Amino acid sequence: MVGPGLEDIKAARERIAAAVHETPVMQSGQLDAHVGASVFFKCEHLQKVGAFKARGASNAIFALEEAAAAAGVATHSSGNHGAALAMAARARGIPAYVVMPDNAPAVKKAAVAGYGAEIISCAPTLAARESTLAAVVEKTGAAVVHPYNDARVIAGQGTATLEFLEQVPDLDVIVVPVGGGGLLAGTALAAKGMRERIEVVAVEPAGADDAFRSFGLGELQPQNNPDTIADGLRASLGELNFDIIRNHVDTILTVPDPVIVQAMQLQWTRMKQVVEPSGAVSFAGLLEHPERFRGRRVGVIISGGNVDLDNLPW
Amino acid sequence: MVGPGLEDIKAARERIAAAVHETPVMQSGQLDAHVGASVFFKCEHLQKVGAFKARGASNAIFALEEAAAAAGVATHSSGNHGAALAMAARARGIPAYVVMPDNAPAVKKAAVAGYGAEIISCAPTLAARESTLAAVVEKTGAAVVHPYNDARVIAGQGTATLEFLEQVPDLDVIVVPVGGGGLLAGTALAAKGMRERIEVVAVEPAGADDAFRSFGLGELQPQNNPDTIADGLRASLGELNFDIIRNHVDTILTVPDPVIVQAMQLQWTRMKQVVEPSGAVSFAGLLEHPERFRGRRVGVIISGGNVDLDNLPW
Repeated sequence: MVGPGLEDIKAARERIAAAVHETPVMQSGQLDAHVGASVFFKCEHLQKVGAFKARGASNAIFALEEAAAAAGVATHSSGNHGAALAMAARARGIPAYVVMPDNAPAVKKAAVAGYGAEIISCAPTLAARESTLAAVVEKTGAAVVHPYNDARVIAGQGTATLEFLEQVPDLDVIVVPVGGGGLLAGTALAAKGMRERIEVVAVEPAGADDAFRSFGLGELQPQNNPDTIADGLRASLGELNFDIIRNHVDTILTVPDPVIVQAMQLQWTRMKQVVEPSGAVSFAGLLEHPERFRGRRVGVIISGGNVDLDNLPW
Repeated sequence: MVGPGLEDIKAARERIAAAVHETPVMQSGQLDAHVGASVFFKCEHLQKVGAFKARGASNAIFALEEAAAAAGVATHSSGNHGAALAMAARARGIPAYVVMPDNAPAVKKAAVAGYGAEIISCAPTLAARESTLAAVVEKTGAAVVHPYNDARVIAGQGTATLEFLEQVPDLDVIVVPVGGGGLLAGTALAAKGMRERIEVVAVEPAGADDAFRSFGLGELQPQNNPDTIADGLRASLGELNFDIIRNHVDTILTVPDPVIVQAMQLQWTRMKQVVEPSGAVSFAGLLEHPERFRGRRVGVIISGGNVDLDNLPW
């Protein structure tokens, strides 16, 4: 597999400009005082479908040749990628097939269906998801779009950082969560491509630390029984993603779940922003490791805001 | 009492420019589709202290003559006004005395204390609050700033609408919640002063409908045992406020509490914004009375976002 470069991210930005939002950057004097740094929050929870995933899915779909696109796109997802793919497919006017485990929350199924995608239910195992997806592709000829181990998706996720560095040009460091590694790989490529001296810091839940371990050992490590409130970050790091990350990321930090919850609560009460657990992981990195960021200009990507209000972690 | 005019609101805007935020305007395609209108949300929950109250308190404090200001300011409050007064007093560098009922939530006391104000506890009755405030004034010579029945406060609250009409010049109608009437009076003066043909619609919880009844009868009616989740709107309409409201407001609508909760949930899940019950009342007006707004360009003021995350109404 060949990873994308800065030019691919710039091309992605033009390709998806009409399909996604340019999200705002927020600041909070109270949170700056709390962590002792100047923090700029890139609000991808205000992106379409409530997460940065809209960027990568849109780029993958709009990059398809006409002939390939006609048969539609397919993926398996229990989260934001399914909704993002459905949204982008509707924008291009092609079918989307989303394989979802039959125990997926009704609200997530409704989001995918709301964008007009066809949902194919399966048993809640990875094997069932993959075999069901293969059958869908066999039948429809749809193009599979992986949620993160895909150069077009990585390039799309990187567009958030192109915007961010235009909005706040003089960041010292940029902080992003890592799960499968799509956002982190795209961020690192964009940030280092635009400003060689910027530091790129990833933050991972301690209960799903395969990226932390892989980065330390220099070799892709498996994810073992992830146990974290940050449901969007339980995926295993992708191969293509890891290749980019070990070449372009400076540090991976881990944070325990109680600090993720504390970060969420601070962002809800002080910034008045609904941030999902995975989306609060980047700011949790500042709470857990303040000495790394003190006095610096820190860009924090809030990755998403899709949370079940009936099931809050406090 | 003499009410303020448009010129007072313009003067207030200059006076408080360094003390408050110019808040952003947000839109949501999903909520537009839900109500069948083009809705622009003025985000006063992103204002300092998390509510529009920062505007009126700042104007009252910065309008004081030097000699009067030296003795400080005082009020009784169990809510956002106390924090707003404390914040503005600190910005001017003068003392603030806030009389709070001894059953006020710890989080609200902490907010007031966090701005350096002196808190004076009293029994949780209006009589105790008023007599305690009188004693504070007797002892300190502080200037009392009423939360809404005050021309300087009304002028300050009106500044949100001056901004709003610059941000979105061609609104057909502007929708605001009404409790004591400070925000509504300021909004109506600013809106009608800037654009004679704009419609001004107030929304009030059905369980605290003294403004609705007063407006209908043309005579100030008492608030009887208010019963609503919108804790910021339980106050009795002020005299000065009513005088302005009956001359400049087009309509007052009421909404039941379940619709207020529904409006909150939509704003949290679709807009990812933490809006307090009182802050969601304006949008609840669109949900409850959609026929009034269909196809129009509607400005909705979100008045505040201070909510206890451990005590949500669902």
